[in-house]
Amino acid sequence: MEKFPDKKTLQAAFERVQQYAHRTPVLTSDTMNRLTGAKLFFKCENFQKGGAFKFRGAVNSVFTLTDEESARGVATHSSGNHAQAVALAARMRGIPAVIVMPESAPQVKVNAVKGYGAEVIMCPSTLKDREATIAKVVDERGCEFIHPSNDLRVIAGQATAAMELLQDVEGVDILAAPVGGGGLLSGTSLAARYFSSSLQVTGCEPARADDAYRSYYGGTLVMPEHPDTIADGLKTSLGSNTFPIIRENVGAIVLVEEDEIIEAMRLVWERMKIVIEPSSAVPVAALLNKKIDAAGKRVGIILSGGNVDLGKLPW
Amino acid sequence: MEKFPDKKTLQAAFERVQQYAHRTPVLTSDTMNRLTGAKLFFKCENFQKGGAFKFRGAVNSVFTLTDEESARGVATHSSGNHAQAVALAARMRGIPAVIVMPESAPQVKVNAVKGYGAEVIMCPSTLKDREATIAKVVDERGCEFIHPSNDLRVIAGQATAAMELLQDVEGVDILAAPVGGGGLLSGTSLAARYFSSSLQVTGCEPARADDAYRSYYGGTLVMPEHPDTIADGLKTSLGSNTFPIIRENVGAIVLVEEDEIIEAMRLVWERMKIVIEPSSAVPVAALLNKKIDAAGKRVGIILSGGNVDLGKLPW
Repeated sequence: MEKFPDKKTLQAAFERVQQYAHRTPVLTSDTMNRLTGAKLFFKCENFQKGGAFKFRGAVNSVFTLTDEESARGVATHSSGNHAQAVALAARMRGIPAVIVMPESAPQVKVNAVKGYGAEVIMCPSTLKDREATIAKVVDERGCEFIHPSNDLRVIAGQATAAMELLQDVEGVDILAAPVGGGGLLSGTSLAARYFSSSLQVTGCEPARADDAYRSYYGGTLVMPEHPDTIADGLKTSLGSNTFPIIRENVGAIVLVEEDEIIEAMRLVWERMKIVIEPSSAVPVAALLNKKIDAAGKRVGIILSGGNVDLGKLPW
Repeated sequence: MEKFPDKKTLQAAFERVQQYAHRTPVLTSDTMNRLTGAKLFFKCENFQKGGAFKFRGAVNSVFTLTDEESARGVATHSSGNHAQAVALAARMRGIPAVIVMPESAPQVKVNAVKGYGAEVIMCPSTLKDREATIAKVVDERGCEFIHPSNDLRVIAGQATAAMELLQDVEGVDILAAPVGGGGLLSGTSLAARYFSSSLQVTGCEPARADDAYRSYYGGTLVMPEHPDTIADGLKTSLGSNTFPIIRENVGAIVLVEEDEIIEAMRLVWERMKIVIEPSSAVPVAALLNKKIDAAGKRVGIILSGGNVDLGKLPW
């Protein structure tokens, strides 16, 4: 276990990230307040570069490297937002990037990564194959591996979304974020620890991919068992860094059902007129269905991203 | 022909509207800039109360009334955004509202209007029936008729979207707005006339509802002939006030095809992560398809609204 990011590390990440990322807006909605009985503040990472918060962690990681390290390039494995985020961040620094993607990845995502100039290596879709392939790439080329969630540089980068929110909104009582690999939730919980006094951070997870919930309450890191949720960004598991950070700094993890996620996602599109992906709808679903005791409270919500296939909507 | 709103009238509308309406954000998008070769500033009226710019005109009209006038209530005919906007504005002032709606109006819209506490009177779907019904209501009850687009109070209210945009963005060269009944385009063109020095306003219209185009270039007000466009908010015709205001203050009207509207709408959803309705996509389509000579220019676009049926998307 490495040393967790401290307050100075988060502040340095903040300085770094704000040079490259959008400072995303915080939206409010009378309708959503009325439906939840709380005062909600939506941090819109769907408006972030690459369409998701993932760009923060990627750009923090890529620009933390020394010139010597960066010359050998970066590598990661991801089928989704992290792949595009690392490719884009590498292009911004002008260094090579290798992205290992599962053969099951949609062609449009593969093309997007290639469009940023990254090299794509396809591999079978199992986690084992992914890890073997990335290990080989890193070994052969000496490039820097940037894990999608467990990398401490990534965690510090993801913390900057909550840091911005806490600068923009006073008196937040609760911060709600989705949890998959735990990079966002870890970063959010560290931001709350260092930059607020009495804030509870709540992780929100699909019941059909409840490994973080079971790990958090069971006290032992467990892997997902056949995760099967529309929130495809949340199928991954906690890691050696994210698990202890979350155990120590998060106040609760709550679960939501698939129909609750879809309903919350549609409601946000209809009433707030913004496009969010299913993972973003998970904390919204938790609030709408009173899985979080938020009555009368001021609640920040990290809307993690807005990358959806408009041709395949779940309603 | 009544006297057109002057600069002071627009300033008074601005003071009035800002007490009740959202000051909507102006968004930018690197992708959209790259695709159009221009620098675009999107005025997001899809985030306005009621989901469309219509609330501005409605609230300006309702709050312009004297106490005596307002006590008798307001009335309008509309199947869409104007109906909800007037109902909501009337509720805010605490006065009665009667909304004449065509029998073809979707039940969800009828329910929304009733939800704001307005009385709904259904009538056959022809313009003639609508006008006869509203005339009867106004005659019998002595209430104030608020025409959806031709009312000068409505026009002054709609102008406030462009006024905000011109305050927020310096050096705008072109302002592009959709045109249906012409309330928004009239107001936008008056805002440009009074509050900018060298700005061209361009109206954007579906080719399949090209009556404003034909009226503007032909010099005679013509009615739509079987308008048939996905941009259902733009099927209405210019009126006795909007036509001369547009003739005098608008620099051009351009036409776009249906597939261009749908493509532009989808692109904005995908890349900007915001929900816009087809009418809003009309000026975006005009820019993407080079119907407006905007290369290298700074272009404000009024995104008119975001009220769409998510269960019936055109792709």
